Amino acid sequence: MSEKKILLREDEMPKQWYNALPDIPGGMKPPLDPATKQPIGPDKLGAIFPMALLEQEMSMAPWIDIPEPVLEIYRLWRPSPLIRAFELEQALGTKARIYYKYEGVSPVGSHKTNTAVPQAYYNKQAGIKRIATETGAGQWGSAMAFASSKMGLECKVYMVRVSFDQKPYRKAMMHTYGASIVASPSQDTNYGRSVLARDPDSPGSLGIAISEAIEDAVTHDSTNYALGSVLNHVLLHQTIIGLEAKKQLAKVGDFPDVIVGACGGGSNFAGIALPFLPDRLAGKNIRFLGVEPASCPTLTKGKMAYDFGDTAQMTPLLPMHTLGHDFIPPGIHAGGLRYHGMAPIVSALVREKILEPIAVHQLECFEAGVLFAKAEGIIPAPESCHAIRGAIMEATKDLNEPKTILLNLSGHGHLDLASFEQYFAGELHNYAYPAEAIAESLKHLPEI
Amino acid sequence: MSEKKILLREDEMPKQWYNALPDIPGGMKPPLDPATKQPIGPDKLGAIFPMALLEQEMSMAPWIDIPEPVLEIYRLWRPSPLIRAFELEQALGTKARIYYKYEGVSPVGSHKTNTAVPQAYYNKQAGIKRIATETGAGQWGSAMAFASSKMGLECKVYMVRVSFDQKPYRKAMMHTYGASIVASPSQDTNYGRSVLARDPDSPGSLGIAISEAIEDAVTHDSTNYALGSVLNHVLLHQTIIGLEAKKQLAKVGDFPDVIVGACGGGSNFAGIALPFLPDRLAGKNIRFLGVEPASCPTLTKGKMAYDFGDTAQMTPLLPMHTLGHDFIPPGIHAGGLRYHGMAPIVSALVREKILEPIAVHQLECFEAGVLFAKAEGIIPAPESCHAIRGAIMEATKDLNEPKTILLNLSGHGHLDLASFEQYFAGELHNYAYPAEAIAESLKHLPEI
Repeated sequence: MSEKKILLREDEMPKQWYNALPDIPGGMKPPLDPATKQPIGPDKLGAIFPMALLEQEMSMAPWIDIPEPVLEIYRLWRPSPLIRAFELEQALGTKARIYYKYEGVSPVGSHKTNTAVPQAYYNKQAGIKRIATETGAGQWGSAMAFASSKMGLECKVYMVRVSFDQKPYRKAMMHTYGASIVASPSQDTNYGRSVLARDPDSPGSLGIAISEAIEDAVTHDSTNYALGSVLNHVLLHQTIIGLEAKKQLAKVGDFPDVIVGACGGGSNFAGIALPFLPDRLAGKNIRFLGVEPASCPTLTKGKMAYDFGDTAQMTPLLPMHTLGHDFIPPGIHAGGLRYHGMAPIVSALVREKILEPIAVHQLECFEAGVLFAKAEGIIPAPESCHAIRGAIMEATKDLNEPKTILLNLSGHGHLDLASFEQYFAGELHNYAYPAEAIAESLKHLPEI
Repeated sequence: MSEKKILLREDEMPKQWYNALPDIPGGMKPPLDPATKQPIGPDKLGAIFPMALLEQEMSMAPWIDIPEPVLEIYRLWRPSPLIRAFELEQALGTKARIYYKYEGVSPVGSHKTNTAVPQAYYNKQAGIKRIATETGAGQWGSAMAFASSKMGLECKVYMVRVSFDQKPYRKAMMHTYGASIVASPSQDTNYGRSVLARDPDSPGSLGIAISEAIEDAVTHDSTNYALGSVLNHVLLHQTIIGLEAKKQLAKVGDFPDVIVGACGGGSNFAGIALPFLPDRLAGKNIRFLGVEPASCPTLTKGKMAYDFGDTAQMTPLLPMHTLGHDFIPPGIHAGGLRYHGMAPIVSALVREKILEPIAVHQLECFEAGVLFAKAEGIIPAPESCHAIRGAIMEATKDLNEPKTILLNLSGHGHLDLASFEQYFAGELHNYAYPAEAIAESLKHLPEI
């Protein structure tokens, strides 16, 4: 009987993150200052980020050391297991070998802690005492609350109002780690108050919450802002996923033909895929499959443009695939994938035709997730169901092709079971591709 | 840096369960037929249990082979990690070494799958097609739903009404694994209908739900009943926890001075402790600490008596510590510990003064759980918070005593976060020891 779970010892955990920046073919365009349209420098961003993270954001070093105190917290749950999906393969009747890297073992149940911990660490090193951040679905807020607690930082989370009301479990998790949480839009910022003045019943949005958190960081002493996806340094930290997976596959003498990840802001996909980029560039026949929701099709229907990361236009302009910063995605249950933009690194990989994006509907994702749960036991997060759906499509295209599929199971679904219950009750539906809203939101954005 | 997580390879997983029955000093009294007051035979119990489980229930063999198909499902999550609580030790300032065996890695997030899988397996082997069972807090129902799904059995869960209404996430989990669930008391059984006729708004109780599930099994073809704690065969299956822990401790050259587990029906505590019983009997200085809720103090305030396992008096009479089968425990949030009885094996260990029981209040348990979460990351289930509280008491009695404490972290609290939120909101309180209710419920039960 082959091993089901391929484990690494703690002393086999990678000691460096892989930095994809120097390897991106064609290079990367810089983020711009919206006021001047010139490349934005560390001086301006230094108001809300510590210098160590800004250095990582722009570094051209291929490898970056993981600080010892970060490694020590990582080992609370890392290395995470790589699991061979024998039971899923059998259920599908495929000759493909499917492996999933299981990030649900983290304290908060998702991969987000991989970057929350170093972000908290570098902020602590810089003398920062307090972090302001936002959360939509709640994974990122939970991760930052946990990381702040470990580093002795205060943490204030602006939680999108609709999630705040619908996700009491996520709130409780953040409270357990000592964070303070407010529904966004809130009375705690000028921007929040202005939104509430116009619309007292605003359900909020990720864009509004980001703007509130940034304003909080700018207007409070010793407070910085933290973002859970999109930025280069976030993707850098997540590469530990793929670096471990590579070691684990090597232990069983395997190597991926296809790597599959869900695409929201990009860090989930990038975490598993980027460490295999040098292999691809060296000529290995390895495909990268990014799975996004059909209702928020940033990579398949968006435009490569300079756009804001938030609706209130407070962030720098990022060179990325975007549906436009005014676009409000439909209310699918994979909240972590409801974002108008995409990490510049991931966007560049699409531009270079290295990453193949596909868009899938939510019902087929829940169906894939339930099949996975019955076979493998683990109930996946709705975001991860997208990756599973993509992997199943690959594994069943030709059942007799013995290819190796590696997927990122970024989190468990124990905190998202309400959406599964709605799925079983027949209360969920697919959303049509919101073509008009996207066209409207994109019309003033020049392609780059 | 010492390893934080002590792991076993899959091929190091125990291949046999440890059977404590032949080792219990003074032996065990048999269960009785309530009608005749004579020892009950396998013939009667065969109506609701497969013969293989009844043989295990009474076996005097010291070791019992784990069937290969059960091992194969175990390896979806087993061996589970043994984790050194460095961070908790540091937070407490203790010289004690604290290890926790983490059973929250199972698909349903608790140890219950360790027995659900073999129970489903033996029923399948016996030609059974359908399992009827009950669930209170939801852990057991989830585990049985998962195990039934893996074995291709139908599963019907009678879920205590109050949990059915308050725990939609647990319901969704059972639905994901394909189980059908009904609120108990239900219209699906004579007993349920009789309860509803008397009290249409009955919140239900574990006793009522057990009676409904047994009636269901008796009155349906190819249907058996399954119980998640108390019985000898359940405790047998849970010994894999302690057997693994023993191997893991040996890897780091350690051995427990104190073993701590929460006591509800007894399988959680027994799972970690029983494999160390032979060591204790051979003269090793090792203490067994069972932690129960002060509001349901079966071991510290109950009586050793022959009593029913359910309120409707449908089960055999079991020789156990009990608060009386009419006793309804207060609504503490560790639902898995709200049971009037206790496993006969665990009760016998108390009788022999091998197990030291202590009773703790719920607020101090939540406090311990939050401290643990901030230190170790993992948010524990409310039941597991009891074991943590016990371990902390041991570790802080004398901060300079370098003893080794082993505790069973039986599950994560991701599905119980609502109770943490109530704790933070100051809405939870301790319950006074319900002396009068217990005296009333016990007055007609002769001590044995």
